[in-house]
Amino acid sequence: MSTEFETGHLIEGKWLISTGAPRWALSPVDGNPLAGDFQEAGPVEVEAAATAAVRAFDLTVDDTSERRAALLDAVASELEARSEPLIGRAGLETALPPARLTGEMARTTGQLRMFAALLREGSWVDAVIDPAQPERKPLPRADIRRMNRPIGPVVVFGASNFPFAFGVCGGDTASALAGGNPVIVKGHPGHPGVSALCAEAVLAAIEACGAPPGLFALLQGAGHELGELLVRHPVVEAIGFTGSQAAGRALFNIAASRPRPIPVYAEMGSLNPLVILPGALAERAEALAEGLAGSLTLGVGQFCTRPGLVLLIDSPGAAAFEALLRDRLAAAQPGTMLNPTIRSKFARSAETAREAGARPLLRETLSGAAATTPALLSVSAREWQASESLREEIFGPAALIVHCPTAADAVDVLKVGGGQLTGTLHSGADDTPDTIRQIASVLERACGRVLFGGFPTGVEVGHAMIHGGPYPATTSHGTTSVGTAAISRFVRAVSYQNAPQHLLPPALQNSNPLGIWRRVDGQVTRDPVA
Amino acid sequence: MSTEFETGHLIEGKWLISTGAPRWALSPVDGNPLAGDFQEAGPVEVEAAATAAVRAFDLTVDDTSERRAALLDAVASELEARSEPLIGRAGLETALPPARLTGEMARTTGQLRMFAALLREGSWVDAVIDPAQPERKPLPRADIRRMNRPIGPVVVFGASNFPFAFGVCGGDTASALAGGNPVIVKGHPGHPGVSALCAEAVLAAIEACGAPPGLFALLQGAGHELGELLVRHPVVEAIGFTGSQAAGRALFNIAASRPRPIPVYAEMGSLNPLVILPGALAERAEALAEGLAGSLTLGVGQFCTRPGLVLLIDSPGAAAFEALLRDRLAAAQPGTMLNPTIRSKFARSAETAREAGARPLLRETLSGAAATTPALLSVSAREWQASESLREEIFGPAALIVHCPTAADAVDVLKVGGGQLTGTLHSGADDTPDTIRQIASVLERACGRVLFGGFPTGVEVGHAMIHGGPYPATTSHGTTSVGTAAISRFVRAVSYQNAPQHLLPPALQNSNPLGIWRRVDGQVTRDPVA
Repeated sequence: MSTEFETGHLIEGKWLISTGAPRWALSPVDGNPLAGDFQEAGPVEVEAAATAAVRAFDLTVDDTSERRAALLDAVASELEARSEPLIGRAGLETALPPARLTGEMARTTGQLRMFAALLREGSWVDAVIDPAQPERKPLPRADIRRMNRPIGPVVVFGASNFPFAFGVCGGDTASALAGGNPVIVKGHPGHPGVSALCAEAVLAAIEACGAPPGLFALLQGAGHELGELLVRHPVVEAIGFTGSQAAGRALFNIAASRPRPIPVYAEMGSLNPLVILPGALAERAEALAEGLAGSLTLGVGQFCTRPGLVLLIDSPGAAAFEALLRDRLAAAQPGTMLNPTIRSKFARSAETAREAGARPLLRETLSGAAATTPALLSVSAREWQASESLREEIFGPAALIVHCPTAADAVDVLKVGGGQLTGTLHSGADDTPDTIRQIASVLERACGRVLFGGFPTGVEVGHAMIHGGPYPATTSHGTTSVGTAAISRFVRAVSYQNAPQHLLPPALQNSNPLGIWRRVDGQVTRDPVA
Repeated sequence: MSTEFETGHLIEGKWLISTGAPRWALSPVDGNPLAGDFQEAGPVEVEAAATAAVRAFDLTVDDTSERRAALLDAVASELEARSEPLIGRAGLETALPPARLTGEMARTTGQLRMFAALLREGSWVDAVIDPAQPERKPLPRADIRRMNRPIGPVVVFGASNFPFAFGVCGGDTASALAGGNPVIVKGHPGHPGVSALCAEAVLAAIEACGAPPGLFALLQGAGHELGELLVRHPVVEAIGFTGSQAAGRALFNIAASRPRPIPVYAEMGSLNPLVILPGALAERAEALAEGLAGSLTLGVGQFCTRPGLVLLIDSPGAAAFEALLRDRLAAAQPGTMLNPTIRSKFARSAETAREAGARPLLRETLSGAAATTPALLSVSAREWQASESLREEIFGPAALIVHCPTAADAVDVLKVGGGQLTGTLHSGADDTPDTIRQIASVLERACGRVLFGGFPTGVEVGHAMIHGGPYPATTSHGTTSVGTAAISRFVRAVSYQNAPQHLLPPALQNSNPLGIWRRVDGQVTRDPVA
């Protein structure tokens, strides 16, 4: 087969071919192999990438923010220069439509540039200065200053559902590079061609900027062994992951069992409960059914934030709303999922829920290699609480409606449901402030992001975004894999005591040469230290 | 035996006596039992404390900062009101001298009030507001705001070596309460009387403030079982711990193996390498020997930051410095360690190092039940790197001198040494800027706090302090158990999307009613949102 991209592994600026049987990406449309004989990386490649990463870290640990920002900007430009082949190949490998992929590409370059801007502004290092107090009694105070510093090599596992935004050049890579760390990406086996093209973009950027080539590596592979080798490697300092609960937890367990444990930032999906109070149903049932059906089927339901759990409080409008939602979903065209494996898992999850007692309001119809129509299921709050099987995420275009006799039952359902990426509350003028507060409060305790109205799909990339949440949504509550705060996962606060000015990083020097916001003696300021 | 304090467990405002054989604190001076028949808490007490904590959390999760601050202030006042019996009992249980305990009490009340001040100032919640942009193309932007929120019940393991500052009312408890979380303390078995008296102070403060009594619990116990029960309890959200590597890692492993893993913030000690370059020796060998001997023997060497590893570069002054340090240490009076177990461990660790080839420059002399004089050992850089046994911390008044042929060898030693709480560099006018930079850089990569001159004992409680570091110094690099940043371990960032003003916490409301520093649309400001 002829290919227009490299099929090996990118290690220290060179594309290397490993031995072993080749592997192909499969078309989700017809299940046939796509162009490209890809290999599986093994211990040799992992060792080479890790060694190169350490070398690169030694060379870049004291790089200026401008140098790091320029690299991120260059990656964005190189991606744009390759957007046509990238979007083309991504379409073949993931069946995502061109409009969606074009939008995702813009989001991906946007977030690379967002981190570049964050670095140039500079205050994210959280510089804190407690100047010396030589006259303090009973003991003088030393000069102590702290700021965030890089941690070292970070391993990123690309996700299947966002080949660009959570892939080789996605948010994890961007935030880890922004923090000053080398990155080793394990490309997702579902889209190896996209991964290779993205890695070419990073390599071109590294060359254009004169950065050390070990700063970035791409290892391709489908087996668990490669992931385990990477997480176990002694020089690796942190893991970024987006994917299933089973895989994320497995990586977490490996990392925790290392002689030197390291943090795993795994985003593992979510039920994303959506509570519709009777007042909201009374006011806008049609719009809610339309909006919810749209959010559920967007990207064939393959978003981490898809609202898969719909809580309805018993009320005159509940049955009618259920019927409305079913009708909207029944009218949806079949959509091709990312690959046949994900489609099988979707169908199996829906079947498991039905076997566990969920009533099928609408059954999925499978077609092609990976296509499906949506499914809708319904249970009572009591049934839902009694069955662990019903609480499993059904990844794909499906929702489970939970009928709650009262708002208090909805609260109980939410308490049992565990950690979530998002939780959404729809209320209307007839709902009591008490009920609204109660639901909002339990959502806040369970979720990384609480929405008042609207739908959780469409994750804004900004300063205030938390795309995270308590376990099992993630393995690290309070962190985010989207938005500027994602950088904090890959840095570490360090204190300097009585350091001479010339040995301090610029962010901590008296004159504040970077002009950043700092906390000096407890006061937020951009002034120099006197 | 008569007692002046409660000997049971404090659970939801009541002192409860568990069944089972009583246990006594032992005098470190003569090894005899001290007054007080203490019990071991078990599953019943853990369950009761956990249930009460959840109840209290429900009642306090939306408390104002002022309410939380008032409680911390009240704990400080109640401690002060009991300082005489507290210092008296602490002296009996730990053999720490009154002056040291008086200072530690001041530090403990000081840090409680520091967190109260932090809450009143308010900006620590890290409020970030990205206002809506309804006109944005291609898609409008939702209003998204985030801030730190409490996480829920926190379990704190008191340390042996700071009965006040890292004990029942210590930094972990203060920061967890400040973050808005209920706290369950496992009192250290070495000083149960101090723990009981401190818990009485917290209870009095809770009653004075009208806070729910489940907000704080003290469970006494010496066995591993109690710790494991606490870490495994499903409602517990995080662990604060200060102690040995073996115990800290065991708790970490338990927490990581839970169905729902939780973070463990374990501070597990450190070698605290101290590098003395030839230029420094040439300028001030006597002062360095005196300062180092003082830092090593302070508190009978029972500080987490005691400089236990001294790196000397081969130079004319090295042998003389070694002799100077040995003479200073040889002149030290015997000191009584915290308890006989710690003293045995100290002697065993020193013996292990000697068996591994360290040359004894000065041997410890044991006396009484728990007293010892200091020990000094010496190895070559090559020997040190070849033997894992030599890299174990010797907790107590001892140091291991590592003779390095060149500064590059010192760098290698530091690279092998692993994560440290502190690292110290002493240099002089004759040392080259390159050497200084090289050592400073490797210290920064290995340590939570890098000192330029001085000695690492005496940890400043402030905004800029990091008392933490890479593993094995802690299980969570970049966090700190001392200073205001300690609060960030016990909170979690939450985003609110399109929330009505009245459902937002005050910190995120448009008018900025708390007057705190926030980041609005990326800009640091105290202005209201327009």
